[in-house]
Amino acid sequence: VFDHIDGGAECEVTLTQNREGFDDISLLPRALMHVTQPDLATSVCGIRLGLPFICAPTGLVGAAHPDGELAASIAAPEIGAKALVSTHATYSLEELALGAPEMPWFQLYPPADRDFCTALLERALVTKVPLLAVTVDVPVPGNRERDVAHRYSIPPKVTPKNAWSVMSHPTWALRLVRNPRIFPKNFVGGSDRVRYREVIPLLRKSMGAMSPRVDWDDLDWLRSQWPGPLLVKGILRSEDARRAVDAGVDGIVVSNHGGRQLDGVPASIRVLPSIVESVGSDVDVLLDSGVRRGTDIVKALCLGAKACLVGRPWVYGLAAGGTEGVRAVLGVLRDELVRTMVLLGCSSVKELSPEYLWTSSK
Amino acid sequence: VFDHIDGGAECEVTLTQNREGFDDISLLPRALMHVTQPDLATSVCGIRLGLPFICAPTGLVGAAHPDGELAASIAAPEIGAKALVSTHATYSLEELALGAPEMPWFQLYPPADRDFCTALLERALVTKVPLLAVTVDVPVPGNRERDVAHRYSIPPKVTPKNAWSVMSHPTWALRLVRNPRIFPKNFVGGSDRVRYREVIPLLRKSMGAMSPRVDWDDLDWLRSQWPGPLLVKGILRSEDARRAVDAGVDGIVVSNHGGRQLDGVPASIRVLPSIVESVGSDVDVLLDSGVRRGTDIVKALCLGAKACLVGRPWVYGLAAGGTEGVRAVLGVLRDELVRTMVLLGCSSVKELSPEYLWTSSK
Amino acid sequence: VFDHIDGGAECEVTLTQNREGFDDISLLPRALMHVTQPDLATSVCGIRLGLPFICAPTGLVGAAHPDGELAASIAAPEIGAKALVSTHATYSLEELALGAPEMPWFQLYPPADRDFCTALLERALVTKVPLLAVTVDVPVPGNRERDVAHRYSIPPKVTPKNAWSVMSHPTWALRLVRNPRIFPKNFVGGSDRVRYREVIPLLRKSMGAMSPRVDWDDLDWLRSQWPGPLLVKGILRSEDARRAVDAGVDGIVVSNHGGRQLDGVPASIRVLPSIVESVGSDVDVLLDSGVRRGTDIVKALCLGAKACLVGRPWVYGLAAGGTEGVRAVLGVLRDELVRTMVLLGCSSVKELSPEYLWTSSK
Amino acid sequence: VFDHIDGGAECEVTLTQNREGFDDISLLPRALMHVTQPDLATSVCGIRLGLPFICAPTGLVGAAHPDGELAASIAAPEIGAKALVSTHATYSLEELALGAPEMPWFQLYPPADRDFCTALLERALVTKVPLLAVTVDVPVPGNRERDVAHRYSIPPKVTPKNAWSVMSHPTWALRLVRNPRIFPKNFVGGSDRVRYREVIPLLRKSMGAMSPRVDWDDLDWLRSQWPGPLLVKGILRSEDARRAVDAGVDGIVVSNHGGRQLDGVPASIRVLPSIVESVGSDVDVLLDSGVRRGTDIVKALCLGAKACLVGRPWVYGLAAGGTEGVRAVLGVLRDELVRTMVLLGCSSVKELSPEYLWTSSK
Repeated sequence: VFDHIDGGAECEVTLTQNREGFDDISLLPRALMHVTQPDLATSVCGIRLGLPFICAPTGLVGAAHPDGELAASIAAPEIGAKALVSTHATYSLEELALGAPEMPWFQLYPPADRDFCTALLERALVTKVPLLAVTVDVPVPGNRERDVAHRYSIPPKVTPKNAWSVMSHPTWALRLVRNPRIFPKNFVGGSDRVRYREVIPLLRKSMGAMSPRVDWDDLDWLRSQWPGPLLVKGILRSEDARRAVDAGVDGIVVSNHGGRQLDGVPASIRVLPSIVESVGSDVDVLLDSGVRRGTDIVKALCLGAKACLVGRPWVYGLAAGGTEGVRAVLGVLRDELVRTMVLLGCSSVKELSPEYLWTSSK
Repeated sequence: VFDHIDGGAECEVTLTQNREGFDDISLLPRALMHVTQPDLATSVCGIRLGLPFICAPTGLVGAAHPDGELAASIAAPEIGAKALVSTHATYSLEELALGAPEMPWFQLYPPADRDFCTALLERALVTKVPLLAVTVDVPVPGNRERDVAHRYSIPPKVTPKNAWSVMSHPTWALRLVRNPRIFPKNFVGGSDRVRYREVIPLLRKSMGAMSPRVDWDDLDWLRSQWPGPLLVKGILRSEDARRAVDAGVDGIVVSNHGGRQLDGVPASIRVLPSIVESVGSDVDVLLDSGVRRGTDIVKALCLGAKACLVGRPWVYGLAAGGTEGVRAVLGVLRDELVRTMVLLGCSSVKELSPEYLWTSSK
Repeated sequence: VFDHIDGGAECEVTLTQNREGFDDISLLPRALMHVTQPDLATSVCGIRLGLPFICAPTGLVGAAHPDGELAASIAAPEIGAKALVSTHATYSLEELALGAPEMPWFQLYPPADRDFCTALLERALVTKVPLLAVTVDVPVPGNRERDVAHRYSIPPKVTPKNAWSVMSHPTWALRLVRNPRIFPKNFVGGSDRVRYREVIPLLRKSMGAMSPRVDWDDLDWLRSQWPGPLLVKGILRSEDARRAVDAGVDGIVVSNHGGRQLDGVPASIRVLPSIVESVGSDVDVLLDSGVRRGTDIVKALCLGAKACLVGRPWVYGLAAGGTEGVRAVLGVLRDELVRTMVLLGCSSVKELSPEYLWTSSK
Repeated sequence: VFDHIDGGAECEVTLTQNREGFDDISLLPRALMHVTQPDLATSVCGIRLGLPFICAPTGLVGAAHPDGELAASIAAPEIGAKALVSTHATYSLEELALGAPEMPWFQLYPPADRDFCTALLERALVTKVPLLAVTVDVPVPGNRERDVAHRYSIPPKVTPKNAWSVMSHPTWALRLVRNPRIFPKNFVGGSDRVRYREVIPLLRKSMGAMSPRVDWDDLDWLRSQWPGPLLVKGILRSEDARRAVDAGVDGIVVSNHGGRQLDGVPASIRVLPSIVESVGSDVDVLLDSGVRRGTDIVKALCLGAKACLVGRPWVYGLAAGGTEGVRAVLGVLRDELVRTMVLLGCSSVKELSPEYLWTSSK
């Protein structure tokens, strides 16, 4: 489970470059600016955020801890951030509507099966999902070789190594047995417990949600079906960003899926400037992939992003301590943001610009 | 034997750069392109390939597993790829003609000894070899220091370390004893078993096939002798590529012999664009050296190659599991190609172009 | 304690780049220049230095060895260098005036609390502090995660790991018990021993000295209050340097606080040329952060610095051997400077210029 | 002793860059050039060399093996190379004249003490030294910290660690006791055995030979005193090369003393082109520092060097096997040169040029 969260595709070249991309950018602070309480508020598609980051959608995190996506949906609003929950969440939209203090944002895949998608959109309307993000970089799942090596799969295959791994983490195993959040709940309809013989068709349906059989027409259709704000997630190419804007989306998430899809694509922070330039001020641009620190978020905002999606950090927090763990991680991020802004001498994230970056002629 | 396959020349600078060359190239996908079954077919010198890769010629692989070159000759066509078999194969042309479902391509060295070469060409005609590749980067063997360190040689020298190594791999040793494929069969004529006192003259003859005593006239002569398609393998310099085209060859294989010859030459993927530019559309350009993944093949095709030669991967597969192992490796490569094309949003390898690559001003 | 001295902020990217910045600069010697006793004397703000380096101000070094800041104040003048002592020193100004052969330079923070600052300036005048340096890059302390991991704090928290660490260094512990120099003495007023219940208000006051609530007006005020030479320490941006010159300071210390404040800022040696260019010959420019060797100092001087601040090296020397250890470290630095100048063929540090650096078109 | 030979100055940045400098240069071969017996002959200052390399002068190598400098003086001419023997050799000029098949070249330092130098030059004339090289980059010895760490010194200091090291290499120790070649013989005059009380003045005299008290006038004087060919060794700066040519030298050795003097100077292979350009065809340029392979020598020759000095390799050979070991090492270098030229498709080292190098726009 750890390697499924931590790993990337194939040689993990992109996973590595996501970090190098941030490390190659240098911040250039202003001295003596009397910044004490920097304003960290931003807005995405007209929605106000107290903090410029969002818990990224990651599938099936209930395997790490039964608090699953509910943890992010509770902890993020508490601190002023947002949670964006995956279609493949181990909590259904309805469960989140009941359990979370405010409805999280919702991620889905382009409508390969329009009937299923229509039903899902209706449930999202009923549960008052404030913003929808459609992920366009998973026509097929990436080749995550750590998963292959561990024979990681849903439903889990029982191998001696896996069995040993489960037995050597008894707390985790016990939690999982008591509250087995390992299936994508949105695909189960109303039923509370998944019976084992329903698993295979359930998984087939959920995999079908990620399909290569979708194109720009499907985005147009989705746009016509969803009245609220719509983000497109997984854009790396300026012309795709432009085309999405033409299709009427409200925002672009520059992302390489955390280095988990096509290995060898550039770090998303490196392509961010070209995307920002291509869409101008027409829509909001967000950044995903490789964000681990407050300084990373500040760098992305300097380069024109409105906010960042943060994936692995909150899932590590979840795995370590459930909702409390997510709270701790998000708190660290907020503290890092405050400290970075103070040290940078910038009083508001809205003022961040390339002026705060250093470039050498090196 | 492992280090003979895995190693490169001297400091292995070129071996390392072959990989860095690929890692430095970034792919830039298109989103929402509805690619489900990408067309992987290409053509080389007018011959259709279902997959854009070819098992590269490597000498004496029978030492790794008695299935030897026959394994590639069986597994490659099954999947739509091709096998290109070395003159120094442990299976003779005639054995391959009998054992393989379709005759593999055949690699030879420029004609140092024209009589021997004429005989070989006649045997190639008789066995209906569809394509000939002449290797021009082995005037003398490279300095592979891992071989020197292990006292790797043909015939094998018996040292305590070697003896121990053989004894600690009993399955491999037993297979080798039952079917000792360790000599270059094409040099033995018709005889099925090599007697020990014939070994030295046999080796002398086979080493003579690789000779510094050859030049462009020999290529002209070979061209005049061989009616079928002819590739030149081992070109790194644009003017040599141009000159080979003038000599009437049908294709160029950009190659540094997998980093096994002159250490310190550039990665072949890095010189590919200059070769493609210099020969234009006159002949097909192929790429060899450093190819390990589907993404590598896609990158080479983006830069103008028609197909790639894949060496070490299939030999690792052979060593691990004979023909079945080669099948598995080639299947992985095909799956990686399909996945890469889908994730890239490109429906046919013929459409690959620099448009799918990302370049920064970094 | 070691990690507190040795570590940097967050991922220590800046800490690492401080060294890479120096390593990327190549020296280009002149041959046969007959340099035997190179002149190492420089001047900073009109004060003559026999050697072009200064012991950098580091807080609370008494925890490493009770000789603390007094060690630098004794050892530096002996050799011709200077000591710049932190406001957070474990020796008060008055103790240093009594104990040191010449009064060291004094570092303070911008006046968040002007009354306290006025009192401190008066004490500095009384003790005849020859030069004042105001540190402007600590609006809040940096995020030094090695400290977080070790629960390093003042006053120290007792944890089993800390207790074990103390017990396994009995000499150090004994010295500390006999002469507990772990509190910032300048905040205690006249009292010789700190009672434990005074610790918290004392620390609160001392942390208040580093405050985000300061701006350029406070620098103006400080300038108006201090009649002697005034350095501004912690400048990385040309416009800030220019602005400080306009405020009437006598010198600029280019510094990233040894990579201990905002992680991700550039190496100070890399921004030095832009600062030197922006202030021209109006004021002296000094360099801090990353200086470990005589060659580092020579490189900085080639790029326009008048002198360097050296932090960690003297504190390592202190930790290893008290005043004697600092003497040894400073002696090594002087010897390296002499050797470097002789090998460079340059007879005076005043003649160092970009002429002695090598730049490739690489 | 090993670390004295293997190590470099301070952080060994230059030592490392000497290798990186070569690795950054790529060779670009020509195919099908029919090169079988490449001509490796070159000339330096009108003297014919069968191979384009010279055993570099290294002091006191007798400590590694009693065969010392005599080994190089015997093995180099046998194979067609040359030996350049240090003033600090453990064999005197007279011993070499007696023992070597042809008189080696001789290295000395600029004349700090003209009387001693005159005497040495007379002895060089008497022993028919064919070429003199004057080393100009050792005004003082470099700071070799591995030596400092091991307390390496002449005469050796006895420390428990040293004693243990000697005892654990009994063969080496026994050889040393039988034929204690650890003192610079040229300073002893005629006496065969050094008495222990003469050691200190002897060393003082020999250290005086390396002196910062020399300048360009001393080079002029030396030029006027020595009728034969004269090389200047240790030039990194074009204007120094030009000035040496004006002083009438016959050749320039671009060298950073193998990274053993000023740490932080550029790799000599990186400055070679600027030196070659500055002196044009007026004198011969040679390269020293970092040469380990035949490919290194070929790269240097492509960039305009007439020959290379090879230091550590022959001393490793000496340490491993005396004269026989040096023979083996030089043979490997010759074989690598032959193989490299054949693989490069170049029939004579005189034809090597930048045409055989690859440069990318990367």
